[in-house]
Amino acid sequence: MSRPRLGVLISGRGSNLLAILEAVEHGELPVDVALVVSNRAEAAGLAHARGRGVPTRVIDRAAYPRRAARHAAILDALGEAGIDLVVCAGWDEILEPALVQVYAGRMLNVHPSLLPAFAGTIHAQRDALNHGVKISGCTVHFVTDDVDGGPIVLQRPVPVFESDTPVSLATRILVEEHIALPEAIRLWADGRLHFDGRRVRIAPP
Amino acid sequence: MSRPRLGVLISGRGSNLLAILEAVEHGELPVDVALVVSNRAEAAGLAHARGRGVPTRVIDRAAYPRRAARHAAILDALGEAGIDLVVCAGWDEILEPALVQVYAGRMLNVHPSLLPAFAGTIHAQRDALNHGVKISGCTVHFVTDDVDGGPIVLQRPVPVFESDTPVSLATRILVEEHIALPEAIRLWADGRLHFDGRRVRIAPP
Repeated sequence: MSRPRLGVLISGRGSNLLAILEAVEHGELPVDVALVVSNRAEAAGLAHARGRGVPTRVIDRAAYPRRAARHAAILDALGEAGIDLVVCAGWDEILEPALVQVYAGRMLNVHPSLLPAFAGTIHAQRDALNHGVKISGCTVHFVTDDVDGGPIVLQRPVPVFESDTPVSLATRILVEEHIALPEAIRLWADGRLHFDGRRVRIAPP
Repeated sequence: MSRPRLGVLISGRGSNLLAILEAVEHGELPVDVALVVSNRAEAAGLAHARGRGVPTRVIDRAAYPRRAARHAAILDALGEAGIDLVVCAGWDEILEPALVQVYAGRMLNVHPSLLPAFAGTIHAQRDALNHGVKISGCTVHFVTDDVDGGPIVLQRPVPVFESDTPVSLATRILVEEHIALPEAIRLWADGRLHFDGRRVRIAPP
């Protein structure tokens, strides 16, 4: 059986992409990272892919000012690369419904909060801190048109400390993202994720 | 220094009341439970208080059909008993603003979710399960007029398992409530809780 082909969408430093690439390199993740797409030419994370010979595409506002056209180009790129599973790893745009629909049940996102708390914001860690929660964490979920509202695959909690700033909390959560996202991809690749309403059931190995 | 006088509001079996009473008995909680108020005459939790000689009051719909009058009677009872801190321990009514105002900063509630997720419902565990979260927990917070939205004192996470029902999840969360609520009361009694915006800062011992 051929390994699933992974497409990873990034916007920034790509630390989650790096966690995925390293898990693959260490034989812990039976997938091939076949394409990395960035919507920002300057995304530092592109170097993680380029340094490993993983194909990259920059599909940005400069080339496609309109979001619909930009996301259509992303959809084309994913199709051309024969992508089975799309992973949003620090991706900072709401995806067009057309793209989401094609990859229904085949697109994961990681969000830096315990959803449904602090959904729909790119400042989830700051908002959590300002709200005064004592526990936060990360969530890996399937992407649907309900932003940050798709079925949840995995969550990992982290404590919030008295001394925390948005940066220190984000850093602590990121450590858990780097565990949760490869694990969720592995569960998907192993065919262990099943929908039961909006609950995601994880089948035994 | 005299020990703070605690008033506990219950509606049901009173397992959180029991956790408080046992913590006091074991010398772990420097407060006196001076009054237990139930809004249901049949609340099984009343027995925990009566068996220990703790004064109880039933202030229910039969005696006071209107909520405003009922809660005014509760406010009177708390005042007559010289209550310093009010604890809602499985209390199933939204409290009148007049009562909340008198005990601003002196009233705690425990809620069976990691707030702000699943606020404003008495079915938080069922809703969490139906939403498909993988982590839930409990929250002890100060009571304000924003239902389940007051400043958070403590939170404790619990995992959600594949086999969970609303009852099994509620039971697992309740174990953590029995730890978190006495601990929050202890922190309040020791004067260690301070507001910083809506964050609750816990001072060192």
